[in-house]
Amino acid sequence: MDNALSRLVRLLSAGFSNQQQAFDNPPLYAHILVKLRPLPQLAPGSLLLEQSYAINPAAPYRIRVLRADRQENGLIIHNQAIQEDERFWGAVENDALRSRISAADLRPLEGCAYRVREEGGGFVGEVEPGCRCLVERKGTTTYLVSRLELDAEGMRTIDTGHDPQTHEQVWGSLAGPFNFSRTHDFSSEIPPDWETAFRP
Amino acid sequence: MDNALSRLVRLLSAGFSNQQQAFDNPPLYAHILVKLRPLPQLAPGSLLLEQSYAINPAAPYRIRVLRADRQENGLIIHNQAIQEDERFWGAVENDALRSRISAADLRPLEGCAYRVREEGGGFVGEVEPGCRCLVERKGTTTYLVSRLELDAEGMRTIDTGHDPQTHEQVWGSLAGPFNFSRTHDFSSEIPPDWETAFRP
Repeated sequence: MDNALSRLVRLLSAGFSNQQQAFDNPPLYAHILVKLRPLPQLAPGSLLLEQSYAINPAAPYRIRVLRADRQENGLIIHNQAIQEDERFWGAVENDALRSRISAADLRPLEGCAYRVREEGGGFVGEVEPGCRCLVERKGTTTYLVSRLELDAEGMRTIDTGHDPQTHEQVWGSLAGPFNFSRTHDFSSEIPPDWETAFRP
Repeated sequence: MDNALSRLVRLLSAGFSNQQQAFDNPPLYAHILVKLRPLPQLAPGSLLLEQSYAINPAAPYRIRVLRADRQENGLIIHNQAIQEDERFWGAVENDALRSRISAADLRPLEGCAYRVREEGGGFVGEVEPGCRCLVERKGTTTYLVSRLELDAEGMRTIDTGHDPQTHEQVWGSLAGPFNFSRTHDFSSEIPPDWETAFRP
């Protein structure tokens, strides 16, 4: 039976690097590492996300708990911050630390979920409409527009920030999406009971 | 007596890093190191330039020999590639290797000189007009538009690539200029006889 949610969580449970892109296009792309690992102690579909500059993986610039789920006719990835997230920096590589993340540590990021659809052999996700996913940069509030493409080879992402009044782009890359290859497969860490929960 | 050329060469003979900017704006700016050191065996004003990702300083993505000089009413920085430049990777940190760079190794980059003027306490340079500084990226030929601001605190640079026919921007940062702080001062390595040569 076709189970898109299960496939999405398996494709997300991985490590990614854009090393090739960074080396091919100096100095336009930072070299970035992205890792997502299942959190079996939380609701099915919960994944710890850490993003860091490759030069400093011990200090991720973004740490989140994502939760993939079914919604209406499609799929959704809920986006949650972690309270006092410095407590859990590096947890993506530290099993004991990762196991201590609890539901009470999470804070939903309203307006920042990704709506996801299947496309080709993979998935495409975009931040839900509404311009409500607010991001502060250098004292200016912008809303995030973000797109994610995920498949067996890797992941492509592009984020831009826009002025809430004029909708003009305030920050983001003209050079194009970040282009990540897969470096790790963490799908074997998905707990078996999630597969039951994922059944349509 | 006012000697702008001497001041320019002193301000250029330095190490620079945009670490703060990269850490403040993840993931939009790669962390980049730029170093320029005098090459006393070459014509006065000659500086070895290496630019690298901070994660991999042993493999600079750009290595050049610049030469600052006076031209008409202002200043110019000539831009020269090095033939088989892998021979000299890391020379900016290796005195013996650096001393072996000779005039025969250099290849002028036509159309890629910077015209420089004094502004405030520092200098502003822009690639000479004419759209002749051609850069190939991913099989597409673009011409470089580049601006450089240099002062006692540091350096700001912005490079964009443009289509030779339509003049549209093909690559470059919307996020804004790279913003470098000074990390090293190599001005004590400027040979005393250059000061004589620099006199107007």
